[in-house]
Formats: sequence, structure tokens, C-alpha cells
Amino acid sequence: MHQIPQKPDWLNQVTIVGVGLLGGSVGMSLRRCGVTVHGYSRRPESCDIAIRVGAINRGFADLSEACDDSDVIVIASPVDRIAPLSSQVAEFTKPESVITDVGSTKAMIVDQVNQDPQVAKRFVAAHPIAGSEKSGVEYASATLFDGKCIIITPDDNTSQEHLSRAEQFWQLVGGRTVNLSPAEHDNCLASVSHLPHLVSSLLASNTDPKSAPLVGSGWKDMTRVAAGDPEMWTAICQHNRPAILDQLDAFSNHLQQLRDLLASGDDEKLQAWLQKAKETKQQIG
Amino acid sequence: MHQIPQKPDWLNQVTIVGVGLLGGSVGMSLRRCGVTVHGYSRRPESCDIAIRVGAINRGFADLSEACDDSDVIVIASPVDRIAPLSSQVAEFTKPESVITDVGSTKAMIVDQVNQDPQVAKRFVAAHPIAGSEKSGVEYASATLFDGKCIIITPDDNTSQEHLSRAEQFWQLVGGRTVNLSPAEHDNCLASVSHLPHLVSSLLASNTDPKSAPLVGSGWKDMTRVAAGDPEMWTAICQHNRPAILDQLDAFSNHLQQLRDLLASGDDEKLQAWLQKAKETKQQIG
Repeated sequence: MHQIPQKPDWLNQVTIVGVGLLGGSVGMSLRRCGVTVHGYSRRPESCDIAIRVGAINRGFADLSEACDDSDVIVIASPVDRIAPLSSQVAEFTKPESVITDVGSTKAMIVDQVNQDPQVAKRFVAAHPIAGSEKSGVEYASATLFDGKCIIITPDDNTSQEHLSRAEQFWQLVGGRTVNLSPAEHDNCLASVSHLPHLVSSLLASNTDPKSAPLVGSGWKDMTRVAAGDPEMWTAICQHNRPAILDQLDAFSNHLQQLRDLLASGDDEKLQAWLQKAKETKQQIG
Repeated sequence: MHQIPQKPDWLNQVTIVGVGLLGGSVGMSLRRCGVTVHGYSRRPESCDIAIRVGAINRGFADLSEACDDSDVIVIASPVDRIAPLSSQVAEFTKPESVITDVGSTKAMIVDQVNQDPQVAKRFVAAHPIAGSEKSGVEYASATLFDGKCIIITPDDNTSQEHLSRAEQFWQLVGGRTVNLSPAEHDNCLASVSHLPHLVSSLLASNTDPKSAPLVGSGWKDMTRVAAGDPEMWTAICQHNRPAILDQLDAFSNHLQQLRDLLASGDDEKLQAWLQKAKETKQQIG
């Protein structure tokens, strides 16, 4: 059982901007600890569902009302909306409140937020390594983040006070915080998440639907993430294009080497390669 | 709940040659229906475990004793051992008994078995689409094959009588039988299983172990099968080399097209491509 710290005194009310699977799960986590959670969505029915499933206490269709008096504001929108929403939110909130996010890319968001130093010092970029190919607050879970890695990517513009509060906040949500630079984050995630996602989509799109009765659990697991939201993943590709292209090129080279190894008939070497891949898999998790 | 047919009158005793995860699961399935199951392994401790977990009634270290009077013999060995074991088994068994297997490749095995027409007519090649990256009879399950596809690949040498019995047998184990030619099987499986397996190993081997704290459920699912047995997968690659090379080449071309699409910046087209992959995934399963 994951041990969750005590709620800090300064943290009483949080606003979730975008109550989907991730935003809703943040809300549920916080409500376990007695934090009051406001939800904002342009669509009133999203807030209604979020209240019904217990993700938020109150729903708002007006951003300034939703943010009023909150200590932390979590932007849980597609990555291309995070910087503009953070600027808006900054206008409606007290200077000590923390603005954070759940976006899968970081460098471009941090660059955009840095255009306005008043927003930049309060914005602590975060990426919880948790989620699902499903979307919608109806799939939210209070334990989604428990024990999971939450990457935080501060830079020179981030105030130490806000950074410290953001770390306390994400630990209260249930995660283990890890600090990286925005660029380190984007390079790592291109390797362990964005490339695998595109490979998953490639495997799915290459399969003849007539083979459907013949697919086993291996194919199903490898293509699970290909069912993710195309709009969200297009925005991730836009934000992290150079790092993803580098990963695609490296993967393509390794694929060619593997092809040549298989064609060579040196099956002892092939087995040693498979053995090494197995060990790396088992070492990583 | 999957509906399992009644045990046919002709089927009273089955021998499993190789009591690992797959062989053990076949044994457990059959014991649900009152079939007596003999297990053969060169290692006596494997039979001991198989008896303890309920996969077999009796264990043998002598192949002829294990097969004596059995109505079906299931060769559950790595693919490169299936044809030689089938020839041996044929010597020890009555002519009406069926010899079948669980190998992940079919054409080369059927070719090898066809060298001896007396074995060929009794050998009904089969491939249950079920399994795990784990190995060992301790992971066997009585329900592993329930409702799963069992591909059967008869050819002109297969006797109709033996084919019909093999179909009844695999349905009793719990599966839905589907008939394909050996070549059709190997081409399909190169696409939905062998290529995905190599891609999984590539993703695992390309990941820096330092990124371990940052991998999420997507990476874990996509690399699950990379933990499979390297010896078994090398044998599969040996058996189905040309079809796997074709699949690797096609995948490599599609990877290059995706790379060019991402580099072009035409993100509307990228989103449409991701949408299509998502639909194919959801259509297949």
C-alpha cells in the first residue's frame, strides 16, 4: 500500500481545468485527503459526470469563478492548450497559487509560458507517468497516481517557493516526484513513450482486419495504446517533433540491423540478441 | 462462459510430450473432461511438478511408455524438435492415434513430417493462439485455451479421419478450430505475432536502463513479449525466416513513410493516420 503524506496547511482548494481521465483522477486523489476540488469544463455535462463519479466537489463553466481562491490550478488539457490556459488562469488567481499541468511534453510549453515572467514563476510543469488509452472522467480513478513517477521540469524562471509547493502537491496526489529539465524530459519520453506509441499505431495499421481471429494477447498488448486519442497524440507529435524524429531514425537503423542479422542466418547471434533484449526488459520493468 | 463439447467416445488417454506452460495447460483442460493424461519429459522433476499442479495423471521419462495406448499425442516442444519427435512417437503408437502439436510455425514442420507418409497421414499440425511470455508448467492454466483460436493446418497427406479427430480434440481442449494451409498460417503469423515479437524486443533493447523510472504502462505492455524464451523465438525465426523478412521490410517501409509524414509537418494528415490506426485496432480487438 502506497503511503500518502499529510495534507499541507497551505493546500485547501484545487481547481482542475479539464475534467477528463487525468484531471478527474487528480480530483479523486485529492478528495481522499480532504481537499476541496473545483472542476472547469466548457461542457456542463462533463462537470455533471465528474461530480457524479466523485472527482470534483463543484463544477464551473466560467474559468475565473472556477479558479477563485484556489491554491493549486491543474491544467489537464491537450498540450497545445496548456500555455494559453495558464496565462488566463494567472489573471484570476492569487500570486502564491501554483499553476501546474499534466502534459506529455514539456519544453515547448515551458518556452511558451516563459514569454510572461509573472506566469512563468508560478507555473511548475509536471507530467505524471500514468494514464490510459481510454478518455473521459468516467474512467478516472483515485489510485491512478499512487506510487507512480511524476516528472517535474522546473527551470530558472520557476520560483523555489512554487516548486516546493508543486512537489508537495503531486506527492499528496500519490506520486513520487522526479525533477528533470524540460529538454531531458522530452528526449526521454520520446524514447519510452512517443516512439512506442507510433510503433503501436504502425503495427495496428499494418494488420489486415481479416487476420482478426488470429491475433493473440501479444498483438493486443502491443496495439493497446494505438486506441489512444488521435488529437491528443497529434499535439504531442507537434510539440516534440525533433526528438521523436531522432527516435524514429534510431529505431529504423536498429530495425535494419535486426533484419540483416535475421537474413544472415547467424542464429546463435540472433539468440544472443533476443537474450539481451529479454534481460533489458526484465531489468527495466 | 465458454461451452466445451462432450468428450468423444474414442478419446480416453492423451500423452503430452513436453510439460511446460502450453503442454501443461492442454493436460489441465483435458482433465476437466475426464481424459487420462500422461506426461513425458526428459527431466523427472518437470513431471513431478506437472503432477503436483494437476496437469497430468502420470509422468514418464521413457517416450514409448508415455505414449503406450494413447489416442492423441501432443508434441509441445520448441518448433525444431516437433518433426523428429513425431516420427519417434509414430513408432510407439497405434495407427489410429492422432499426433498433433502446438508449434508457432507450420510449413517447415509439415514439410519435415511429410518425408514419411506413414507419419504424415496421422500428424495434424495445430497452433493454439494462446500462451504467455512466461514458461514452465507452474504457469499452466486449465482455461488458457477456452474460446481461443486453434489454427489447424492439414494438407493433402493428412487423413480425413485423423483431421476430424484432431478437430474434436482441440475443441475439447476449449478452442475454436480454424483451418488454414501451412503457408497461409506462416504468412499470417509472421504479421500478427512474429514481427510484433521482434519489434517488442527492439523497443526493449533500445531503451536506456537509466530511463527505468520513467516508463509507463504503454512501454510495459509493448515490451511484455520481449521477456519470452530466446531459444524458442530463435527457432521460430529459423522456421519462418522468409515470411518474417518480408514483414520486417514492409514494416520498415511504413516506418519510413510515417517518419516522412511527421517531418513534413502536415499534422492534419498525421491525425487522420492516427485515427485510421485507432479504428483498425478497435476493429480487430
